[in-house]
Amino acid sequence: MKPLVIAGKTFNSRLFTGTGKFSSGKLMQDALLASGSELVTVALKRVDLKKQEDEILPYLNHSQFNLLPNTSGVRNAKEAIFAAQLAREALETNWLKLEIHPDPKYLLPDPIETLKAAEELVKQGFIVLPYINADPVLCKRLEEVGTAAVMPLGSPIGSNSGLQTKAMLEIIIEQSKVPVVIDAGIGAPSHAAEALEMGADAVLINTAMAVSADPVKISVAFKMAVEAGRMAFEAKMGKSVKEAVASSPLTAFLDEL
Amino acid sequence: MKPLVIAGKTFNSRLFTGTGKFSSGKLMQDALLASGSELVTVALKRVDLKKQEDEILPYLNHSQFNLLPNTSGVRNAKEAIFAAQLAREALETNWLKLEIHPDPKYLLPDPIETLKAAEELVKQGFIVLPYINADPVLCKRLEEVGTAAVMPLGSPIGSNSGLQTKAMLEIIIEQSKVPVVIDAGIGAPSHAAEALEMGADAVLINTAMAVSADPVKISVAFKMAVEAGRMAFEAKMGKSVKEAVASSPLTAFLDEL
Amino acid sequence: MKPLVIAGKTFNSRLFTGTGKFSSGKLMQDALLASGSELVTVALKRVDLKKQEDEILPYLNHSQFNLLPNTSGVRNAKEAIFAAQLAREALETNWLKLEIHPDPKYLLPDPIETLKAAEELVKQGFIVLPYINADPVLCKRLEEVGTAAVMPLGSPIGSNSGLQTKAMLEIIIEQSKVPVVIDAGIGAPSHAAEALEMGADAVLINTAMAVSADPVKISVAFKMAVEAGRMAFEAKMGKSVKEAVASSPLTAFLDEL
Amino acid sequence: MKPLVIAGKTFNSRLFTGTGKFSSGKLMQDALLASGSELVTVALKRVDLKKQEDEILPYLNHSQFNLLPNTSGVRNAKEAIFAAQLAREALETNWLKLEIHPDPKYLLPDPIETLKAAEELVKQGFIVLPYINADPVLCKRLEEVGTAAVMPLGSPIGSNSGLQTKAMLEIIIEQSKVPVVIDAGIGAPSHAAEALEMGADAVLINTAMAVSADPVKISVAFKMAVEAGRMAFEAKMGKSVKEAVASSPLTAFLDEL
Repeated sequence: MKPLVIAGKTFNSRLFTGTGKFSSGKLMQDALLASGSELVTVALKRVDLKKQEDEILPYLNHSQFNLLPNTSGVRNAKEAIFAAQLAREALETNWLKLEIHPDPKYLLPDPIETLKAAEELVKQGFIVLPYINADPVLCKRLEEVGTAAVMPLGSPIGSNSGLQTKAMLEIIIEQSKVPVVIDAGIGAPSHAAEALEMGADAVLINTAMAVSADPVKISVAFKMAVEAGRMAFEAKMGKSVKEAVASSPLTAFLDEL
Repeated sequence: MKPLVIAGKTFNSRLFTGTGKFSSGKLMQDALLASGSELVTVALKRVDLKKQEDEILPYLNHSQFNLLPNTSGVRNAKEAIFAAQLAREALETNWLKLEIHPDPKYLLPDPIETLKAAEELVKQGFIVLPYINADPVLCKRLEEVGTAAVMPLGSPIGSNSGLQTKAMLEIIIEQSKVPVVIDAGIGAPSHAAEALEMGADAVLINTAMAVSADPVKISVAFKMAVEAGRMAFEAKMGKSVKEAVASSPLTAFLDEL
Repeated sequence: MKPLVIAGKTFNSRLFTGTGKFSSGKLMQDALLASGSELVTVALKRVDLKKQEDEILPYLNHSQFNLLPNTSGVRNAKEAIFAAQLAREALETNWLKLEIHPDPKYLLPDPIETLKAAEELVKQGFIVLPYINADPVLCKRLEEVGTAAVMPLGSPIGSNSGLQTKAMLEIIIEQSKVPVVIDAGIGAPSHAAEALEMGADAVLINTAMAVSADPVKISVAFKMAVEAGRMAFEAKMGKSVKEAVASSPLTAFLDEL
Repeated sequence: MKPLVIAGKTFNSRLFTGTGKFSSGKLMQDALLASGSELVTVALKRVDLKKQEDEILPYLNHSQFNLLPNTSGVRNAKEAIFAAQLAREALETNWLKLEIHPDPKYLLPDPIETLKAAEELVKQGFIVLPYINADPVLCKRLEEVGTAAVMPLGSPIGSNSGLQTKAMLEIIIEQSKVPVVIDAGIGAPSHAAEALEMGADAVLINTAMAVSADPVKISVAFKMAVEAGRMAFEAKMGKSVKEAVASSPLTAFLDEL
C-alpha cells in the first residue's frame, strides 16, 4: 500500500485515532497499539496543564504514536487560537486538529470560525487539520489558506452512523489537493473500509473503539478494514451494475440429459 | 476468531470463493490462495467430464482448497439432481452448491425447485448449500429438510451492489439454526465486512475478485475485510445513535481565557 | 391517469387498503372513504361466520368499496384453501388475497405453500392476489399458474420501513405481465409515491393509516401521494445524475460589474 | 393544512419553483400554474436589464406568482450584493434568493461568502433566503444575522438524487427557528413528500419539472406530493419499527378446521 504523506510526514497507517471514552488508560494504550495508529488526537483538557497527575499522556508516550492535540470544547476562532497555543507549548508539537463546535448537542463544526482560525494558525506555523462539515466549497477554501488536510465528518460525532454525507464526501475527494481524512460517525469496520474504497486518504476513529465490549479486538478489526479498503481502492473495483452477470458460465452439460 | 463449522467440517476462513471470469487459471489460483479461501465453488461445466484437457481443476489441486461443485446452468430440480450426481462422481465430493436459476438475465434462484431438489439431494447423502433469494421462510424450510447451510443473495449475481436485501438478511440471520452464507452481489470489501458484522457466518465472492485490475491484491483486501467484520461481530459494536456523543470531553481550560 | 385493470375489473384508485388496527369501525370507514380506495382487504376472522354481531362488515357496505377477503392467520396451503372457501361463501366474492405466513413474529409469507394454494384456488375459480416475498422468480411462477396480480412486500408487515426490497421490486416490475401491488411496510406517503414512480401498479396500505394520530387526514395524504407517484411515472422523470446541472443559467450581467 | 409564513407573507403552497430549462416560456407558465406555486425564483440574467425583448417576465406576470430573484452566477459576496441591488431595481421586490457558487461543476454554495453577503443584504432591507450546504451550524448563524429562511440543499443542483443530506437536514429542521426550504436535488414527487414528512417547511423544485417529458403533468404530481407530505407531517405518522406488527388480526376460525 502506498503510504500517506501529510505536511511532509509519512504514515504507514491510514487509521487515525482518539483517546476519549476508554475505560482506562491502559486499555486505551492497548487498543491504540493494536490499531497500528500512528496519529492520535488528544483533547487539550486531558493534558494536565498544571503538571499534576496526568492520566493520559504517559500511555501515549510510545514511538508508534504521534500526538495530534485538538481544540475540542472551544466555541470560536479566538478560543481555538488560544487553545492551540497552549497545546503547542504543553505537547511540543505544532500539529493541530482544529475543532470549533458551538453546539453542545451534536458537536457540529462552525465553518466560519474554523476558516478564520485556520488562516491565522497556518500563519503562526501550525500544521492544521480542520474538522468540518462535508462541505466541498469550504474544503477548497481551507486548502487555499494552507491547511495540511481536511477532515469532513461522515455523520455526527459518536453516532456510529457511518458515511451519511457520502454524496458530498465523493465531491470533496474528487476535488481536494490535500489529504481527506473522514472524521466522526464511523462506527463499524465496514464504514471505514467504504471510506478508503471511495478514495479517502484516512479515517479518524474513536468512539467505536472505546465503547466496544472488546476495544483491543475491534481496534484490530478497524486496522484490517482500513487496509482492506485502501487495497481495494488501489486494486480498482468493478463497477456496480444493475443486471446480473454470471460468474459461473452457463453449463452445456445439460445437453447430455 | 471462532472457526466456522459446516456439516462437521471446520473452516478457518469465512471467505468462500468462485472460479468464474478470471483471465487465466494461474491468476485465479494466485488470487484464491491469497484470499485464504478454503472452500471454492466450481461450475460443473468447467470440469472436463470427458477427461480431455481440463482448464480449471489443476489450479484448484491445492491443500488449501476444498471444492464445492455448483449446479449453475440448471433450470429445475430434475436437472439439478442430475448435475449433482455428475459432479459427485467427477469431483469425488458430496458437497454441493445448489443453484437453480431459470431466468437467464438476472440469474435469480427458483425457490420451489430449489426446495424440491434440496430435499431429494439431502436424502441422497449430499451436503447441500442452496443459493436462494433472501427469503426467511424459505430458509427455515430448507433448514428443515436438512441443508447444511443457506446461501441467500445480497443482490443479483455480478452486480457488485452489496447487501440490497439487508432487511431480510437480518431476519434470516436472527432465525437460522444453520450457517448463513451471503452469496452474490458483494462487490467491495466494505460489503463483505458489513455482512460479517451483521452476524452472517460467511460470504461467497467471485466476480469482485475476478474483474478487478489486480485480482490478487483485492483478494487480500477481501480476506482482511471478512476477518475485520467477524472480529467486530465478536467484539460487539456500539449502537448507531442519532445524537452526537462527544469522544473528546469538553474542555475546562477555557476558563483560563 | 390510466386506470388499473385486474382480472377485467377497472379501478380508478391505485390505493388498496386494509381494515386492521383502526380504533373504531366508524373511523375506519371515514379513513377508507377519504382514501378513495376501491379495494379493501378484510381478514376472514373479522367476518362473523356465526351471523352474530358483526363489527366490521357494516362499515364496508358502501358502493366505493370492493371487498378482498384475506387468509391472514393460515399456516399452509390446506388451511388457506379452507379459509378461501369460507370467505367466498360468507362475503360472496371470489376475489382473494392469499396470505400464508407460518412465522408469528415477522408474518413473512411462505413461497412454497403460497404457490401450491394459488394453483389450486385458481382452478377453483378464485381471483387470486398472493402476498409474497419480493422474489422475482416466484412472481413469474405465480403468474404462470394464473394469479390475477402479485403482491410482493416492501418490508415486514407493520414495520413502516418502506421499500427495503427495492432492488428486487424493480426486477419484478420489469418482468411481470400481471399487475404488481406492493404490500406491507409502506409507512409514509413518500414510500407510496416511490412505489408508483418505479412502475408498481398499486400499493396496499393499512397500518400506516390506522395508527396515525389522524387516520382520515393521513388517508387523504396517501391518496394524493399515490396519484402523484403514478402521474410522475406517466410523465416520465429525469434521470438521477451525479454532477450538478444548473437549472438557472449562469449570468452574464456580472460583466457590468 | 397550515399555511406557511415567511417574513410576514402567507403562502398556501409549500412548493417553490424555478424558471430554468423549460423548452418554452408558455410551457413554463403552464407548468408553474399547474404546480400551484406562489413563489418562483428567476435568475437575474433572465431579466432583460436593457428593456429589450424579455423572454421570461411576461410569463410570470400572474397573480399566483410572487417573484424571488436569485443571484445565480455570482462567485462572492461583493458580486452577490451588486446582483441583489440590480434585481431589486429591475423586479421591484426586496425578496432575494442568495446563491453564491464559485464552483462551476457542482454549483455548490460558498458558506463564508454567503454569510457575509446575507448579513449585509439584511441590513440593506432585503428579505434573504440563502441557498446553502446542509450545514446546521451555518443555518443557525444565518438565522442570527436575520435571514428570513434557510435553503439547504438535498443534493447537487439538477442531480435529481433526492435527500442525500438527510442526516444533516433532520438536525437543521430540529434546530431552526426560521422556515427550512429544501432546495436542489429533488427529482421525484417521493423526494418532495419525504422532505415535508420530515418537517421541512417547503421545497424548491425546478429541473425535475422542466426536464420531464410532460412538465405540466409532473408539476401537478409535485403539487400533490408536497401536500401529501405536509398532511402526513401534521397527522403524525407511525414509527418505523423492525418487527412485523400484523394489521390483520390472527384468525381463530381455523379451530373449526
